[in-house]
Amino acid sequence: MLIDLNADLGEGFGVFRLGDDEALLDIVTSANLACGFHSGDPVTIRNTCAAAVDRGVAIGAQVSYRDLAGFGRREMEVPVEELYAEILYQLAAVDGIARTMGGRVAYVKPHGALYNRVCRDPAQAGALVDAVADYNASLPVLTLPGSAVHEIAAGSKVATVSEAFADRAYTAAGTLVPRGRPGAVIADPAAVVARAVRMAVDGVVVAEDGSEVAVEARSICVHGDTPGAVVLARAVRTALKEAGVTVMAFT
Amino acid sequence: MLIDLNADLGEGFGVFRLGDDEALLDIVTSANLACGFHSGDPVTIRNTCAAAVDRGVAIGAQVSYRDLAGFGRREMEVPVEELYAEILYQLAAVDGIARTMGGRVAYVKPHGALYNRVCRDPAQAGALVDAVADYNASLPVLTLPGSAVHEIAAGSKVATVSEAFADRAYTAAGTLVPRGRPGAVIADPAAVVARAVRMAVDGVVVAEDGSEVAVEARSICVHGDTPGAVVLARAVRTALKEAGVTVMAFT
Amino acid sequence: MLIDLNADLGEGFGVFRLGDDEALLDIVTSANLACGFHSGDPVTIRNTCAAAVDRGVAIGAQVSYRDLAGFGRREMEVPVEELYAEILYQLAAVDGIARTMGGRVAYVKPHGALYNRVCRDPAQAGALVDAVADYNASLPVLTLPGSAVHEIAAGSKVATVSEAFADRAYTAAGTLVPRGRPGAVIADPAAVVARAVRMAVDGVVVAEDGSEVAVEARSICVHGDTPGAVVLARAVRTALKEAGVTVMAFT
Amino acid sequence: MLIDLNADLGEGFGVFRLGDDEALLDIVTSANLACGFHSGDPVTIRNTCAAAVDRGVAIGAQVSYRDLAGFGRREMEVPVEELYAEILYQLAAVDGIARTMGGRVAYVKPHGALYNRVCRDPAQAGALVDAVADYNASLPVLTLPGSAVHEIAAGSKVATVSEAFADRAYTAAGTLVPRGRPGAVIADPAAVVARAVRMAVDGVVVAEDGSEVAVEARSICVHGDTPGAVVLARAVRTALKEAGVTVMAFT
Repeated sequence: MLIDLNADLGEGFGVFRLGDDEALLDIVTSANLACGFHSGDPVTIRNTCAAAVDRGVAIGAQVSYRDLAGFGRREMEVPVEELYAEILYQLAAVDGIARTMGGRVAYVKPHGALYNRVCRDPAQAGALVDAVADYNASLPVLTLPGSAVHEIAAGSKVATVSEAFADRAYTAAGTLVPRGRPGAVIADPAAVVARAVRMAVDGVVVAEDGSEVAVEARSICVHGDTPGAVVLARAVRTALKEAGVTVMAFT
Repeated sequence: MLIDLNADLGEGFGVFRLGDDEALLDIVTSANLACGFHSGDPVTIRNTCAAAVDRGVAIGAQVSYRDLAGFGRREMEVPVEELYAEILYQLAAVDGIARTMGGRVAYVKPHGALYNRVCRDPAQAGALVDAVADYNASLPVLTLPGSAVHEIAAGSKVATVSEAFADRAYTAAGTLVPRGRPGAVIADPAAVVARAVRMAVDGVVVAEDGSEVAVEARSICVHGDTPGAVVLARAVRTALKEAGVTVMAFT
Repeated sequence: MLIDLNADLGEGFGVFRLGDDEALLDIVTSANLACGFHSGDPVTIRNTCAAAVDRGVAIGAQVSYRDLAGFGRREMEVPVEELYAEILYQLAAVDGIARTMGGRVAYVKPHGALYNRVCRDPAQAGALVDAVADYNASLPVLTLPGSAVHEIAAGSKVATVSEAFADRAYTAAGTLVPRGRPGAVIADPAAVVARAVRMAVDGVVVAEDGSEVAVEARSICVHGDTPGAVVLARAVRTALKEAGVTVMAFT
Repeated sequence: MLIDLNADLGEGFGVFRLGDDEALLDIVTSANLACGFHSGDPVTIRNTCAAAVDRGVAIGAQVSYRDLAGFGRREMEVPVEELYAEILYQLAAVDGIARTMGGRVAYVKPHGALYNRVCRDPAQAGALVDAVADYNASLPVLTLPGSAVHEIAAGSKVATVSEAFADRAYTAAGTLVPRGRPGAVIADPAAVVARAVRMAVDGVVVAEDGSEVAVEARSICVHGDTPGAVVLARAVRTALKEAGVTVMAFT
């Protein structure tokens, strides 16, 4: 029983800070680093790479739309050729910085609105997969199983890694309950911890209708942007360990 | 007798275009590519890399202050740690894109206000040299002989390459006449061509006081942002060839 | 018979220039000024305001998504509250600058992807209308008749002004043929001129199926981003005059 | 005995927050609002204007260099014409938004590196004063007494208002001890409170050499970017009141 814990890190920009990177780096095994387009200035990228390398945490490039004002959360109709080049640029920048610190980018995870978009849009998913393939085809893409990007990648040289969300409700079909819907986010910390353990140990989650559905996940995404989130992430890690799960990066 | 011709390229941003890249790429042997901070969006970087690789033109990373609105021409008091990381970011981004096109960044040239600053400021020059050293110490830095950046680099693992300006007046001491001063820029195309040839063949230039001064240059910088500039650059190349000079990249 | 000619102006950014503003300002009666979010730096805004005031050309605020890299042509899922505030910011900035030059913003025209979006999306159209209403409800919004923004404005204090495109094909229903479709753009300059005159004189256009459809327009949009476009715009103006149409701003 | 308390507010950008605006708005009488160039997105500007208007706090436009990545703290060699237009743009944008909320910009305060620069550089100070004069000459500029901007303004229609810093050491000449020097910042909260009271009541401060120097100030600047800073600002306000000083905006 192996599971990876991933979280968004290095999301500061200039004087602005977001989340408790130091705390999270002691909990997760994979760090999704902001690459400068939704946040993540070069100094922050460098310092976060250094801290991740120090702790043996895998570094992922969390590529995004170019949208600092909207933190990459506003979906954009970016032409495929532009998106491809923008992803390449971000990926190369962070990988290059990581290498000067003795690390390297080991995987790619799309951020925010781009994450949602490549789950359903084959065109933008194709731009992402092509950029990864052309930069370094050995880098896996971390997203949702069954999504457009997983399908597109299946027809390419690029591997995918599936992730699950312990704090999100699932439908009986095994997909995430959309955020707008009541109950989409699990608020009870104990429930979140329990769901993480069942995902890792049994590969199942209890859906909103009470049924058990299979959830394929080599990684579980945790959050760290509030003090409560960090405490919860730590509780998830502890519970996984106690359940006999090895928490280990997928790379 | 060997000389390189370098010019700024890929300075478009989004819909905006600047200079005739296609024409220049048939003239120069080294292309200083904008890296996104003063201009140069990812699509432009990629297309310019492709065109440079096609023609066997060497690719340089023309790193800049983060100043799109001012085209990198406004000097900035950037703390050394920030400047170092910003240069690393740009260098890695362009090198990574170039490599997907079968090329690579082969040298670094600072742009605009940063160029001027590192010629006299050891601190910012040190940030530049350190970034190059840490990214890839085999990349030379192209700037003015006798400048702060050349001195700093001399104490490091990073090599420098000297360039000269055929369209700029020189003092008897061998330095450039500052831009504000009358006669600082040579307007007569025939004079520019003749100066380029003397620089390459004899290693001298006639200073503003009429004396001949030695000018050490492995590269001559040409411009391409006006139709007249492209014609002039082509005339320089032709005259060099006719004078028996081999026009060849320094990399 | 009255018609206004409007064109996009002041679309430079820093060193970048786009279109021949000087030539266009002698042709059009309304200038849609870029406000800084897709292009239009403060110096350009100021200089273009000065030139428009000099010639008695009406100034419009061409508000846009915040997307300099994409020139405002990439549709964005901006939350309504954000879009409202972003439009307010742009409108106030350009109006304030215009007033220091003895002018003022006299109307609002959405730019690029925002233009298209507010024609069909009541939510974003509402954000635009609300921002105009709250800033200065006496400013009309210039867009397509029958669009969502026209409907939303009809229920508000904000007036709308309809525009037509002489170089675009129309459907029998009086809507624009979408850009992707063959024949969507009229390439023949003589045809464009003739269509402009019929729009202004008879209020009709020949649709793609050969039928005549009514086209309600107080303004016709002309382009100026190529030398040919400026020549064509001038020919449209001359032909309108010769047909007895008074070319005059709607403000 | 009258004194104003001013603080920087609305310095968030997108998802990023900085300082406790709600707490500070209950303490200060003048709010220096970020205008979008070093921070301050349109939604934040609007919400902060609304909150200031609600509490009767005067709104100032805190204009800055265009430097989001450096938070306006990096001095820039901006040509005077550009700086003038950039200041005009920011001032107009925030004033326009404030007016939709029933408020208005009542003064101007330069931010960060621009603040320091206009204290010693007549050229940039002139750009600031000219922009204010042309936008609304009745708006005072808030900065240090004896600075270049105060001198330049003295020869114009623009008034200035002097501020003092209770947490900064002063030289015997009445100028601020430069930040780099030991003891430049007063760390002891009780000392800061006592100094604020003496400034307001007696118009003097104890300089670093122990002498008492006159300090002319109609406003005292307080900070709010840490929880401790807010507590200190509140203590300053309370102590002023207890000393019989009326805390009131200068506008």
